[in-house]
Amino acid sequence: MKLIVDCFGGDKGPAACVEGVLEAAGAYPGAEFVLVGDEDRLRAELPDGCKNIEIIHAPDAVSGNDKPIDAIRLKPESSMVKAVRALREDKTADGLISVGPTGVLIAAATLRIGRIDGVRRPAFCPILPTMNGGIVGICDSGANVECTPEMLLQFAVMGSEYLKAAFQRKEPRVALLNVGTEEEKGDDLHRDAYRLLKQEAAVNFVGNMESRDLLSGKYDLVVCDGFSGNVLVKSTEGTAVELMKKIKKDIYSKGLYKIGALFMKKMFEEEKRFMNYQNYGGSVLLGTEKIIIKGHGSSDATAVRRCIEQAADMLGSDLNEKIAARLNIKEEAYV
Amino acid sequence: MKLIVDCFGGDKGPAACVEGVLEAAGAYPGAEFVLVGDEDRLRAELPDGCKNIEIIHAPDAVSGNDKPIDAIRLKPESSMVKAVRALREDKTADGLISVGPTGVLIAAATLRIGRIDGVRRPAFCPILPTMNGGIVGICDSGANVECTPEMLLQFAVMGSEYLKAAFQRKEPRVALLNVGTEEEKGDDLHRDAYRLLKQEAAVNFVGNMESRDLLSGKYDLVVCDGFSGNVLVKSTEGTAVELMKKIKKDIYSKGLYKIGALFMKKMFEEEKRFMNYQNYGGSVLLGTEKIIIKGHGSSDATAVRRCIEQAADMLGSDLNEKIAARLNIKEEAYV
Repeated sequence: MKLIVDCFGGDKGPAACVEGVLEAAGAYPGAEFVLVGDEDRLRAELPDGCKNIEIIHAPDAVSGNDKPIDAIRLKPESSMVKAVRALREDKTADGLISVGPTGVLIAAATLRIGRIDGVRRPAFCPILPTMNGGIVGICDSGANVECTPEMLLQFAVMGSEYLKAAFQRKEPRVALLNVGTEEEKGDDLHRDAYRLLKQEAAVNFVGNMESRDLLSGKYDLVVCDGFSGNVLVKSTEGTAVELMKKIKKDIYSKGLYKIGALFMKKMFEEEKRFMNYQNYGGSVLLGTEKIIIKGHGSSDATAVRRCIEQAADMLGSDLNEKIAARLNIKEEAYV
Repeated sequence: MKLIVDCFGGDKGPAACVEGVLEAAGAYPGAEFVLVGDEDRLRAELPDGCKNIEIIHAPDAVSGNDKPIDAIRLKPESSMVKAVRALREDKTADGLISVGPTGVLIAAATLRIGRIDGVRRPAFCPILPTMNGGIVGICDSGANVECTPEMLLQFAVMGSEYLKAAFQRKEPRVALLNVGTEEEKGDDLHRDAYRLLKQEAAVNFVGNMESRDLLSGKYDLVVCDGFSGNVLVKSTEGTAVELMKKIKKDIYSKGLYKIGALFMKKMFEEEKRFMNYQNYGGSVLLGTEKIIIKGHGSSDATAVRRCIEQAADMLGSDLNEKIAARLNIKEEAYV
């Protein structure tokens, strides 16, 4: 396994990335890692004599304010653009992990990295925790704001294989995000996608899902066009974050509440850990020939290590070969 | 003011509706109310000698499981269908309040009640509380799963006038729901809508909004196509409800937490009240000639009374005349 790690662009700086890589290097002794970023700063974080860790020097970094297309064109020396180039050019490289801006990563990877045979468009698949202690994948959550029914079907196939490979789900329960649960709900895109999903033997399709049920634990994968998927993921995260902020503020508003909160300190810590989606792994771009994992911008070393484990699981289970096999069977069925 | 109240289809039965009407009848002595539903059950809730309250007998009720079009066709004797018919036929009736299923109400009202001059499609506009103690309207949240840029512009105009009329917002800050804040984000629909909104003098347009910022208090109105608006509203509500359920469950899991929660009882009650969107009024269908307000299915008497107050505010401020005036100026500008 050879992974390229873009070490700049995250909130915690390169130290968290390097530390995560060092932890993983211990667990995967045969693995090679290529760190991309300012060489001096990376060297400063590395102990002497790391034989399986290379560095590619990149003096620049992309930021969340960069427009994706501009960043790719105008920042060729940024760690992310150089990391994607290295992934493309190094035939032995298997995948890329980045904690930098999502939009730039998706754009660069979609433009520069080839697709798995049969894949129409790569799709972005973050994972959220459900309220019963499980997880749910959302695919696509923003790589494709405009979709066709066939693309939604492919998202379902790719997402199902991904959940089997990286989260040991046997028969992932797949739902289609819609405005109601009945089959005829939504616009033409969603009605047509429903029909395709219902016929697809490779997908355990359980019907339409309303967004309010995302965290219910009844579904393993939610398939959506990138526009509404983006709305879904960000509103779920936003509401949880805002609500916990409000509760915290309210606790500090009164002495009595502060005392009560002392009794519940552990519980609130646990809620915080529970809602920290870093613990559930990075968001994967599905459908590219090489593995692309986006860690959260605020990823710490543990989160980076978790992304590396995820890449190892995906490689170890031949995820991309399985996706190609599934899609090729289907392409024949379309004809 | 003459309002028709569909008293069946809500979770709390007709008693809550009748009680809400009786409370409002005291506050609006000149108002007339028409209760629709099973006559015997309604009579049982009414005190003797209510002069300004009529009853229309409707032996049947629609349910959340009814498909809207089927319900309208197959349940002509249901309280909701009869209420919409009464609103259409009674020239003196100003509006309708219902706590029954949203989908049937929107479908029946859209089909049977005329539109304000110049309105392309009515839009559904619920109100949610923001974390700084304010409110935000979401328009459209599901009446139109397919939209044009011109429709989104009309939603912005109607929603702005509504927030001025019913919530005393002077210059409502209007955002467009999108996958990012930059002008060129999203698909053609959203880019074109952005351009129209930016040019529109009648709308205080402040730019694109990502769904994670819905509750931030930075916006008074969020304009969206009905599909993503539906995803937004239901995921926001769903996440808040699921999270509070989880916290409650976790509190009950340990004696220590239960003790802590005793200190915070008042705070949790306050959070519950805060999140109970009944307290912020019903969801309004904007663009119909007569006022249509959908109260939450679990509305109690207070929530029903609040819907009636909302209708009074809308009528008292000549909302529909203002919408017509704004839209007619614009239609000329299009030519």
